[in-house]
Amino acid sequence: MPMIHLYHCVSARSFRPLWMLEELQLPYSLHMLPFPPRLKARSFLELNPLGTVPLLVQGDVRMTESAAICQYLAAAHPDAGLDVRPVDPAYGAYLNWLHLGEATLTFPQTLVLRYGRFEPRERQQPQVVEDYRRWFLARLRAVESALARSEYLCAERFTAADVSVGYALLLAEHLGLSPEFGERTLLYWHRLQQRPGYQRAMAAQIEAAEEQDVPTTPAPDTRP
Amino acid sequence: MPMIHLYHCVSARSFRPLWMLEELQLPYSLHMLPFPPRLKARSFLELNPLGTVPLLVQGDVRMTESAAICQYLAAAHPDAGLDVRPVDPAYGAYLNWLHLGEATLTFPQTLVLRYGRFEPRERQQPQVVEDYRRWFLARLRAVESALARSEYLCAERFTAADVSVGYALLLAEHLGLSPEFGERTLLYWHRLQQRPGYQRAMAAQIEAAEEQDVPTTPAPDTRP
Repeated sequence: MPMIHLYHCVSARSFRPLWMLEELQLPYSLHMLPFPPRLKARSFLELNPLGTVPLLVQGDVRMTESAAICQYLAAAHPDAGLDVRPVDPAYGAYLNWLHLGEATLTFPQTLVLRYGRFEPRERQQPQVVEDYRRWFLARLRAVESALARSEYLCAERFTAADVSVGYALLLAEHLGLSPEFGERTLLYWHRLQQRPGYQRAMAAQIEAAEEQDVPTTPAPDTRP
Repeated sequence: MPMIHLYHCVSARSFRPLWMLEELQLPYSLHMLPFPPRLKARSFLELNPLGTVPLLVQGDVRMTESAAICQYLAAAHPDAGLDVRPVDPAYGAYLNWLHLGEATLTFPQTLVLRYGRFEPRERQQPQVVEDYRRWFLARLRAVESALARSEYLCAERFTAADVSVGYALLLAEHLGLSPEFGERTLLYWHRLQQRPGYQRAMAAQIEAAEEQDVPTTPAPDTRP
């Protein structure tokens, strides 16, 4: 198999594929970028005209959607058990959580981040921040309900779907929203953070940022 | 296989699974709801506490993410060719477009809809509408680029990924954004609308809404 190249900003959505790579213990090359790369690493636009992370390149395969990359990597290494197959009764739930982690639980938080922190003061929007903080917390109740049945979201084991939703919880913690997690969600979030794969991914991004001389925190005044 | 039940609001994201069901010519039961069901069909909350559409129920399978449902239905009926298998070189692209259609191309448009149309006048946010109109159009360039290589987004044939992105184009047309589509994107959008499966889905939702006495347009003053 060709080498996997992952383009990543510290703590951005691209943490999902990094976490998957560490769970699967695959070889990869990690390319760190300052945030936002669209403005601070203009040469990246030649590789990804959207200017977004993640970008994963493996031979002719080229992907930019973090939850899709989780499913792709899981399916390519089925023996690791992070994938759920179409014949499994949990397949529908697996796909649903993979998508929900990004489309329903992450995008609303980017509005909280953008209009509460990244935009210059005159463009901040407290109403939008509050609208989508509440929107996120309302949807997060689905996670709390699912965890009443099992320690993980589906298939009664840790899968790529937990990586998709786990990143949304990481972002929520950065935004100060974790005190509003339900009790089961909070325990689940602690359980995810204790995984060796999660901890290796956390260490890998800091080590690579230092080696590649990329700041480990975004500048306060930049737009996502 | 147990009967498929789809809960749907006219022209909402739940159009994606409806379109897939018609492409696959599967039997299904279509339950129409006024928009937004969270406020206008309170009993729906017993079935889906999030109050969102789509909700697809088939026996023990219960899904709420429209792009995930597209993949689920495609994988359950591989002979129809709307699915791309993990062994196919186009698998990564397929997953990427499935996710991109919702997370990257639809969510930004819901902000244009919410803060430009659905919110009462004093809560409308012209800056946010303009920010996410531009955000959507910038990301849409990825579709224009992909169509330089093929008539469809991946695997050189129509797949569930085209349903995921196709719905984003339908929403963009409703929002008056289609004049800003690139030339290839516009031709692609016309091609999608000419599909018998698309046309059957369009007719099915109107017929079901009339039969079930549900309005075919959302009230202007409601929040998504």
